[in-house]
Amino acid sequence: MLDICLLGTGGMMPLPNRYLTALLARCNGSSLLIDCGEGTQVALREAGMSFNPIDTILITHTHGDHISGLPGLLLSMGNAERTEPVTIIGPKGTEKVVKALCIIAPELPFDVNVIELNDNVETFVRHDFNITAFKVNHSITCYGYSLEIKRAGRFMPELAKQNNVPLKAWNRLQKGDDVEMDGVIYTPDMILGPERKGIKVTYVTDSRPCPEITKQAKGADLLICEGMYGEPGSEQRAAEHRHMNFAEAASIALRTKVPELWLTHYSPALAKPEMFKDYVCSIFPNTKICKDGRKVTLEFDKNE
Amino acid sequence: MLDICLLGTGGMMPLPNRYLTALLARCNGSSLLIDCGEGTQVALREAGMSFNPIDTILITHTHGDHISGLPGLLLSMGNAERTEPVTIIGPKGTEKVVKALCIIAPELPFDVNVIELNDNVETFVRHDFNITAFKVNHSITCYGYSLEIKRAGRFMPELAKQNNVPLKAWNRLQKGDDVEMDGVIYTPDMILGPERKGIKVTYVTDSRPCPEITKQAKGADLLICEGMYGEPGSEQRAAEHRHMNFAEAASIALRTKVPELWLTHYSPALAKPEMFKDYVCSIFPNTKICKDGRKVTLEFDKNE
Repeated sequence: MLDICLLGTGGMMPLPNRYLTALLARCNGSSLLIDCGEGTQVALREAGMSFNPIDTILITHTHGDHISGLPGLLLSMGNAERTEPVTIIGPKGTEKVVKALCIIAPELPFDVNVIELNDNVETFVRHDFNITAFKVNHSITCYGYSLEIKRAGRFMPELAKQNNVPLKAWNRLQKGDDVEMDGVIYTPDMILGPERKGIKVTYVTDSRPCPEITKQAKGADLLICEGMYGEPGSEQRAAEHRHMNFAEAASIALRTKVPELWLTHYSPALAKPEMFKDYVCSIFPNTKICKDGRKVTLEFDKNE
Repeated sequence: MLDICLLGTGGMMPLPNRYLTALLARCNGSSLLIDCGEGTQVALREAGMSFNPIDTILITHTHGDHISGLPGLLLSMGNAERTEPVTIIGPKGTEKVVKALCIIAPELPFDVNVIELNDNVETFVRHDFNITAFKVNHSITCYGYSLEIKRAGRFMPELAKQNNVPLKAWNRLQKGDDVEMDGVIYTPDMILGPERKGIKVTYVTDSRPCPEITKQAKGADLLICEGMYGEPGSEQRAAEHRHMNFAEAASIALRTKVPELWLTHYSPALAKPEMFKDYVCSIFPNTKICKDGRKVTLEFDKNE
């Protein structure tokens, strides 16, 4: 089960009633944040989300609207007497930016570790989150992220018996642990069928459409993608600013065959993004023109 | 005429429905901002205030909740294609903090000049604002600010005639300019009576009560002062954190004989500051327990 909350939907600058684009993902008691613009800590509170379980912050890129709220969030975490470390993952240069911004957070009661991405595609495992960072195409180095929650195979008692796995080991093996008994090591694959489809969410902002997005979003249950401009014909403006518009995001959703698209990261000039709903849905029907705080709980497929 | 807008009333961290404490002052088309925490740019928009006329930003001190929103505000000013410079005045060390934070605002289309305060009391003139910065008593170097709008003396035709000032010079002299005519230099004091009482607002956050505040707030039409804690008996906690509580702020207002006190900079734990209204008004009756966006227009005394 994966809880997703799109904390804000704005690009460039925070506005009254429109926080900057950021995502909270929560699974099995641990939380992960993507981006942290000015006001993201307030958006978290507004959405009823706790800071405490956040121990991973993914940064898409170091433009102000995606990282300006970081020192404030870290300060607030410190004020809540956090002692557990926080890991920040972002493009090359992120550490320098984090250090500079943290001039106003000089005495945090917890460690902040920064991991910089160097390759075009990198993967990480943080608690239940299997993270894939993939380089996209913006005016500065920028990454999209896929979050996957894996799902073990179905328990198969016949297989367990066939492999002579003692009954006492079954429970722990089902939880994914290896078990040693009487000098024999038993592994989960000795009692479980093939891995089942998990849950996958792909998040992209800021970028021009590019093949890597289509590739990485394949198999996602949800694609959350920027749509800086809504108007038909705004492709050229989008290209100039290295963003994409609604139609371009919808075309990616169509090509990748994801079941659902959430649009976000609207230009401050785009006061009523929902006015382009019919237009964008004519390209990709299951497009949601999101508002701040949109939530969904994605569950494993019950039929598998 | 001086427009005052208390943009936020929070201390430590921004909350839903409570922006961080900051003040906008507007006089004759130019604006001045005191402090810029995370979200202050949104509070400005929410209060219907334009960024454009702001060319002076006074920083009380460099704790995060008073300066974390600065790079975002400067970026938004830049996005609005500002080219006029912005002057930031703050305690020693402000320049280093501003430079570090502006790592995410590397290419602003206008100059940012930082003036650091070194003395206990310093004065500046910016447009119609006569600014007095005075050192207060917090855990790091912190300044309070008085803003005064001066008022020239009344026009006295008898005095003008007595000083043989030509009629053609009267209008410009009334505007405060010196005028040269036929080799003679005429000055405004040759046609104007003694300077009249102007408008004065004194702003203090964060600080323990100290004699300098009482001294500098003398003659103010409005004292805006922090009240971190509301409860009677919270003096010790306030002292530990180098803040003051409602009663201490009210006592300062009483001693300085200001006509009105605005409280602000509430602890995040103080969910309902207005519950202490009767208590604080028993110390200083004209205390306003402010909410975000409180405005007043202060005018010159019509009887003078």
